Amino acid sequence: MSTTDYDIHPRTKLVRGHNRASYDRETVHRIIDEALICHVSTVLDGRPVMIPTAHWRMGEQFYIHGASKNRVLAAIANGADACICVTHLDGLVMARSAFHHSANYRSVVIYGKGRVMDDPNAKMEQSRLFVEKLAQGRWDQIRQPSKQELKATMFLEFDMEEVSAKIRSGDPVDDEEDYTLPVWAGVLPCRTVWDAPIDDSRLDRSLLPNATPA
Amino acid sequence: MSTTDYDIHPRTKLVRGHNRASYDRETVHRIIDEALICHVSTVLDGRPVMIPTAHWRMGEQFYIHGASKNRVLAAIANGADACICVTHLDGLVMARSAFHHSANYRSVVIYGKGRVMDDPNAKMEQSRLFVEKLAQGRWDQIRQPSKQELKATMFLEFDMEEVSAKIRSGDPVDDEEDYTLPVWAGVLPCRTVWDAPIDDSRLDRSLLPNATPA
Repeated sequence: MSTTDYDIHPRTKLVRGHNRASYDRETVHRIIDEALICHVSTVLDGRPVMIPTAHWRMGEQFYIHGASKNRVLAAIANGADACICVTHLDGLVMARSAFHHSANYRSVVIYGKGRVMDDPNAKMEQSRLFVEKLAQGRWDQIRQPSKQELKATMFLEFDMEEVSAKIRSGDPVDDEEDYTLPVWAGVLPCRTVWDAPIDDSRLDRSLLPNATPA
Repeated sequence: MSTTDYDIHPRTKLVRGHNRASYDRETVHRIIDEALICHVSTVLDGRPVMIPTAHWRMGEQFYIHGASKNRVLAAIANGADACICVTHLDGLVMARSAFHHSANYRSVVIYGKGRVMDDPNAKMEQSRLFVEKLAQGRWDQIRQPSKQELKATMFLEFDMEEVSAKIRSGDPVDDEEDYTLPVWAGVLPCRTVWDAPIDDSRLDRSLLPNATPA
């Protein structure tokens, strides 16, 4: 364990599958930054609620945003604990026994409370970070948020303290006696690809400084 | 609303973005079946916890499985409410203003309690459904679960009653006055692709009836 690791907390200590755990900051950052969406859960009236939403990161702060009236965001704003998960599915692990079928994946879980950002300048800066994550350089091309728009948007900031990553990669791990079974075994790898940009049907290309999107 | 729609419950009634809501069973089924993993959240000691995990569906029952000692599964097995989310990110929606940037996505949320399956035959059948979802025909090729393996695996069954889908697709929706801004706008579409299967490094091809995986 290096000095750059996250501290292990009771909630982030992986009990089973601990060989898949990582508390390395760089590993965690990479998993978070590569993902565009996360799942955010909290407790509302004693029951779990969850939304998928976009996220971004700056140093050891994790950010989400959305409509101020969103039930999940509002609950966290009111002090409810959050659990956030960022997941990449990298492949299906096809073993020789049903039991050892698995998935290759990289995931991060963050526990904590969120802080509502009130300062319009700070919110403006987070808007910029979000848009720049989607497409670098875009912030200077678009119309930036109005006061009204910033007011209608809630930005929540989470300190990345109770954080862990879980990673599985590579071959299936079969029981020794199963390796002679006459069945294919290995990994079916998957990944996200980006297809050609689709112009807005109302896009007027004559308005553009050049024809290249983003 | 057709007769095949899910009933709308207080928790599944989409208040904002209601034009993105769907309660259509076929739509919901398709979103669930196309996905290999979901996020499952519950409440443990009053706080939210969440795992990404594989899922499958049979009719109006939704299934997950895992190690019996998994904290999230165990909490649900002990009667804690669950909230399950299945999400596909389909693209980034690049608007002319920061505020209207969005994502195209299809998601399903299921609220409910899970039932632990105790009957070994029922668990065996669910193992089969899971493996067959990963690769049709594979169940008959692999070693099927032993009694011990079935015992170590918890299968949770959820009735799909409190269910809703949320879908966004298509162009950005900008404020009317922003359509003349000199910036590209449209969708950056993304999707999951499957690359060529990777043989297990210990695979002995001479054992196989044929060389085609899965």
